[in-house]
Parts: sequence; C-alpha cells; structure tokens
Amino acid sequence: MTTDTAGAGELLTILRDGRSRTRADLVKLTGLARSTVGVRLDALLKQGWVVPEGEAVSSGGRPAVSYAFNPEARVVLAADLGALHARAAVTNLAAGILAERRTELAIAEGPETVLGWLADAFTELLEETGHTREEVSGVGVGLPGPVSHETGRPINPPIMPGWDDFDVAGWLGSRLGAPVLVDNDVNIMALGEHWSTIRDVEHMIFVKIGTGIGSGLITEHRLHRGAQGAAGDIGHVRVADADPDVMCPCGNTGCLEAIAGGNALAARLRVSGIEARNAGDVIAQVRAAEPAAISLVREAGRNVGDVLASLVSFFNPSVIVIGGELAEAGEHLLAGVRERVYSRSLPLATANLQIRVSRLGEQVGVIGAAAMVIDEALASDAIDRTLA
Amino acid sequence: MTTDTAGAGELLTILRDGRSRTRADLVKLTGLARSTVGVRLDALLKQGWVVPEGEAVSSGGRPAVSYAFNPEARVVLAADLGALHARAAVTNLAAGILAERRTELAIAEGPETVLGWLADAFTELLEETGHTREEVSGVGVGLPGPVSHETGRPINPPIMPGWDDFDVAGWLGSRLGAPVLVDNDVNIMALGEHWSTIRDVEHMIFVKIGTGIGSGLITEHRLHRGAQGAAGDIGHVRVADADPDVMCPCGNTGCLEAIAGGNALAARLRVSGIEARNAGDVIAQVRAAEPAAISLVREAGRNVGDVLASLVSFFNPSVIVIGGELAEAGEHLLAGVRERVYSRSLPLATANLQIRVSRLGEQVGVIGAAAMVIDEALASDAIDRTLA
Repeated sequence: MTTDTAGAGELLTILRDGRSRTRADLVKLTGLARSTVGVRLDALLKQGWVVPEGEAVSSGGRPAVSYAFNPEARVVLAADLGALHARAAVTNLAAGILAERRTELAIAEGPETVLGWLADAFTELLEETGHTREEVSGVGVGLPGPVSHETGRPINPPIMPGWDDFDVAGWLGSRLGAPVLVDNDVNIMALGEHWSTIRDVEHMIFVKIGTGIGSGLITEHRLHRGAQGAAGDIGHVRVADADPDVMCPCGNTGCLEAIAGGNALAARLRVSGIEARNAGDVIAQVRAAEPAAISLVREAGRNVGDVLASLVSFFNPSVIVIGGELAEAGEHLLAGVRERVYSRSLPLATANLQIRVSRLGEQVGVIGAAAMVIDEALASDAIDRTLA
Repeated sequence: MTTDTAGAGELLTILRDGRSRTRADLVKLTGLARSTVGVRLDALLKQGWVVPEGEAVSSGGRPAVSYAFNPEARVVLAADLGALHARAAVTNLAAGILAERRTELAIAEGPETVLGWLADAFTELLEETGHTREEVSGVGVGLPGPVSHETGRPINPPIMPGWDDFDVAGWLGSRLGAPVLVDNDVNIMALGEHWSTIRDVEHMIFVKIGTGIGSGLITEHRLHRGAQGAAGDIGHVRVADADPDVMCPCGNTGCLEAIAGGNALAARLRVSGIEARNAGDVIAQVRAAEPAAISLVREAGRNVGDVLASLVSFFNPSVIVIGGELAEAGEHLLAGVRERVYSRSLPLATANLQIRVSRLGEQVGVIGAAAMVIDEALASDAIDRTLA
C-alpha cells in the first residue's frame, strides 16, 4: 500500500469544483500534515491531473502558488447509440465536446457492425484532435435498451436483435485499450442534462419521448439505476382510461409507449390521411402547423403527464426535463404534460416544480456518456490507483 | 479547530459495523499515524462512545486490546404519533427498545396536548430506565402528515388541525434539552424496517395501508425525501379504471386512498350490512373469515398493486414491504398486490422482487424514529462536535 499518495484522489475531488487552492488551503481543508499534502499534490502534478495556476495572494513572504484541476489532462470517448442513428465524440474531462461524428445506422444491424463503426469513429476522432489512446481515461456508451451497468451487457433488449447479453464493454475495451462503461440511453441523457445545466439540483426526472418512452432518475445528484438497473422504464406503465384495444408489442394493453410514442402518433396521423412514418414525420407536421398533428402531440403530452403525475407525488423531483425527438414539438407537448401533472399531483410536490425541455438537444446523450466516465475515472479511489 | 480529535468520528463510523478492532487495525484502515489514532481513540473512550473489548490475538509481545462501538453510550427518545394513537420509547444506540408506552390519543387534540403527553412520557420512561437527560443523544418524532424534515414543522397536514407550521422540533427541544428530528410517519417506518430487517438492501419501498395510504422510499440505503420532503405520498395517485364518482377529500376523484384506504373499505362493508367503522373493524371481519371483508381486502390489494406496478417499473426496488393496519390481513392483501405488480411491471424489474409484510408490526415507527436520530447523532462530523 502506497500510503503517501493513497489520498491524492481526495485532493483531486476537492479541486474538481473548479476553484484553485494553495498548499496551505489544502492542508486546512483536509486536516492532513503539510508534508502529506505535498507528496500527494506532487503526484497529481506529475500526472498532469492538476496544474499550477498563477499565484495566490499571500500574507507576506513568498507569494503562494495555487493549484487547479486540469480538464485537459485526459480525454474521454463517448457514444450515444439510438435505434436508427449513432453518435460518437471525444471530450475533455469537463465533458466538453472536442470533435464528434454522427451517422444513420440501425442498431438492428447487430453489435459487430455497430460497434465496429464506433471503434473506427473513435480512432479517427482521436487522430483528428491530436490525442493518443494512452490519453483516454475511459469510454462511455449509451444503448437503446435495458443494460446491466455492472457487466456492460444488454439484457433482453426488445429493439436490438443480436445484442442480448453481448459483451459490449469487453468487445470495445479490447479494441480501444481503455475501460468501457455502458448504460441505457435515457440514463446517460439524465446524467448529461444534470451535469451540464442543473448540477445543483438534487432530484430530477429526465423523460425521453421518441419512438420509445423512457426516463432517467437523478437522486442526491446521482443516477438511480435501481436493483436490476431497470429504473426509469416507464414506457409500459398503463395509462389511465387507455383504450383497451391498443395492444403494445410487450404483450400488455394501454402502455404509455403504445399510446404516446412516436410510432403510435405516426400511425394515428396516417388514419387521418396524413403521410407519417415516425416521430420525425410527426414533428415535421407540427412544424407545418398541421392541426391534427398539433392536437395529437398535445394529447400525447397529457398521457405522459398522467403517468408523471403519479411519479411526481412518489418521487418529488424539483425538475422534470423532456427530451427525445418529440420534445422538438416544444410548448405543444409541454402544455399537455403540465396540464395533467398540475391537476393530479400533490400541491406540495408541484409548488416549486419546473417542467421544461432539454437544453442540450441531440448532444445530451454523448455529454452524459462522457460525464458517466468522468465521474468514475476521477473518483478518489480511481485516481489513487492511477498513482499507485 | 481541534485537529487532533477532529477525525474521531471517522473512527467511530468504522466501528459502527459492530466488529471490534485493535489500534493497529485502525491505523491500517485509516492510513493515519499511530499517534493520531491514539489521540482520537482516547477521546472516544473518554466519552464512552467506544469500549475496550477483551484482548485480540497478537503476534508475540503484549496482547493487543481491541475496541468496539458501545450502543449503551447514550439513549434516544423515539415517538410515533398516529391519527388516533401515540407511542413513545427509550432506545439504545442500536435502536433497541429499553421501555415504551402507548396510548389512545387523537392527533386532532392539537400539538400542545399531544406533545405535552409525549414530553411527560419521555420523562417518565427515562426515569423508569435509570437514565438522565444528559444521556439523551436526540429525539425522533414521526407525524401522520407532510413534514419539513429540515425545519421540523408540519406542512398543511390534512388530518392534523392546529399543527400546520407548528414548531414541533423547537417546542419539544426546549422542554427536553436535546436536538429533535421530525419526519413523516411512513418515512420513519421505512427507516425502521430497513434498519432492523434488510440493512443490506439498497432500494426498497415501504407502503403503509391504514386509514390513509402512503409510502417511504429507501435508495442507496438512505431515505429519499424528495425536493419538498413530499416523496412517497401515493395516497392520491389516480387508480386506473377507478369509479369516477368516488370523490376524495383532497378534491380529486379516483385517488388510491379513497378506494383502498381503511375508511373506504369500512364504508363498503356497511353497504353490505356489516358493522365497521375503520380499518381495525375491517381486519376484525377478515379474522372472522367474513367473505365480503376478505374480498374487499384482496381488491384493495389489487388497487395498491396497480399503483405499485408503475412505481416498480420506475424505481426498480428489490423489496416492497407492506405495513399499517390493513397489513394484518396478511396473505389476502398480499395476493392482490402481487397479482397486479407481477402482471403489469416489467419482467426485468420483478425478476428478484420480494413483496412481504413488515416484520416489526406496530413497533416499526418508533424503531425508525430512533434510527433517524442515531444515524444523525453518530455521523462522523456530529461525533467530532461532541468531542471538540
């Protein structure tokens, strides 16, 4: 055990708030001996995790140097794989995107095709940004289905043929030479929105409304994955007063996704004689001010709102963020969501509740995948291991 | 700042797992200097938080003494105030009940009457168990309504006339000379069940089904109170396919509590010509094998199960515990709950889900109130303050 540097990660955790500190500040904050702080700080400096940052005001004598966390110390490879598209990015340790790539690619092409594209894209993006594999802290991947975050494998994902139990983390890790973290796409979206726009919010729900409907939960600033990593899966919650004839591919009737998901809305537009294959086409009709589409989106908002009303009473978040393709319908969708949440949730739980659309749009997934990796790579014990 | 003893709380946190350790063990576990561990351990021994416990096996030389957390170092005053009853107890620091008292007392009598009884009961219980006020680590109180845990005041509690914004913590604290923590009764029940029977479970939901219906959430071993402390309030969630004519006192229709709560069931028994005023009478009829009562309780279980099915998909707990008066109907109620949860929740979320009744029965509330105080009083920084 290298006792001398073993607590260096704790120093880095302190510095990750973005403020710089002198040695004296760090001695005071940790209660450790000056010599111990010195050894640990030197180890962090040597690896580039921390950089000296100008000179702090000192009470006489030599001006004291202050030290700051260095977000450029390493890079992260981040990916958001959707049902029909893939997005890859290189970020710094503040989840800032340095370069990115997007392609139309169906997840149904299977793991080797999709992950092969991803490995190539990451290699090219590293080259483009002038970074090497040695500088990669980790790889984060979001997948459109249930995932075991611990093993990095999908679990019976309904829209991902060939992916069940595929070792995504192992396959990518052996090709990229870095640790790989995998999670559900909505979980990484919740992380991305929380990390970038509302990091001081303790409890939030991110709801993705696209072809599928799902949610990601943040509690006490951390992702709540639940006992089997299945938390947030609200697409198959039964909607009150749902038409009992609406059968969902899951085998039940009245599921939220089967009533308010992108495909369901497109199907209903077609019944009205309007050409629409998917969520994107529904949004195009909303943008064209087609009354039938606007009415459908508002009603979908009400259905989502009915489900969220229960969840607001149960979970008492302070923010609900709506993302996914249908979020592009903006106020038409939000109006329906708000109508039901405010009429059915407890007044105490909605008194300070904010309901809004995502501020990160399409990039929310890759930013979240990067944030997932950064939180793990910069955790105090992980840093200690890099220095041991 | 007393740097020498400032980390003593951290040592106590290590010892709270119930295992005893030698000085050498503690040096190894903390990475601190032997002299620092010595100073901190002495401070803990002096205050009685830690006691020497026999002699550990040593590798030659003098046998080393090992040290253990002392659950008898202080006592806790714990109370569970219900709509129609009050319960007070003195416990040790393991939430073990040393003496308790229960009385029929309506919360509607108002705060001064109810809290006056409580202050007297606590004083008598301390005397009975041979303890003094100086030995009291803190006071924990559960109330049957929404509470701001931070201020210790009820917030618009529907069944507690005269209690809105009453300074429960301040009123009791000034009379008992100890810090007072207040929370919702279902939250303390969740804490009590978790603390005593499933401390290794990360995510659970405790559901109380009595006159009212509410829940308490544990995530990552801690109570999830939510943004306004309103989390878990599922009594007014709308039940799918509920009779739209069933008006709830909250002003909405179809609320779970208005359909499956004790008063609702008693009212329906009266319609069948069976005498029943409340949940207790319903349970008495179930015990007497009255088919109408058994059928009603099972249907109530289905209604609760419908709501829980959504929450299981959303929150993915590994255990659901049913408590409150109607839980005494046991398997009749559980069968209904399980039927709906297993038919409507995602298979992944129910694969390892356990649904059972509380193992602590009527004492779950006071045990939880004590656990709430102990977790706060023995937190590392709180211990440091007692030693400063």
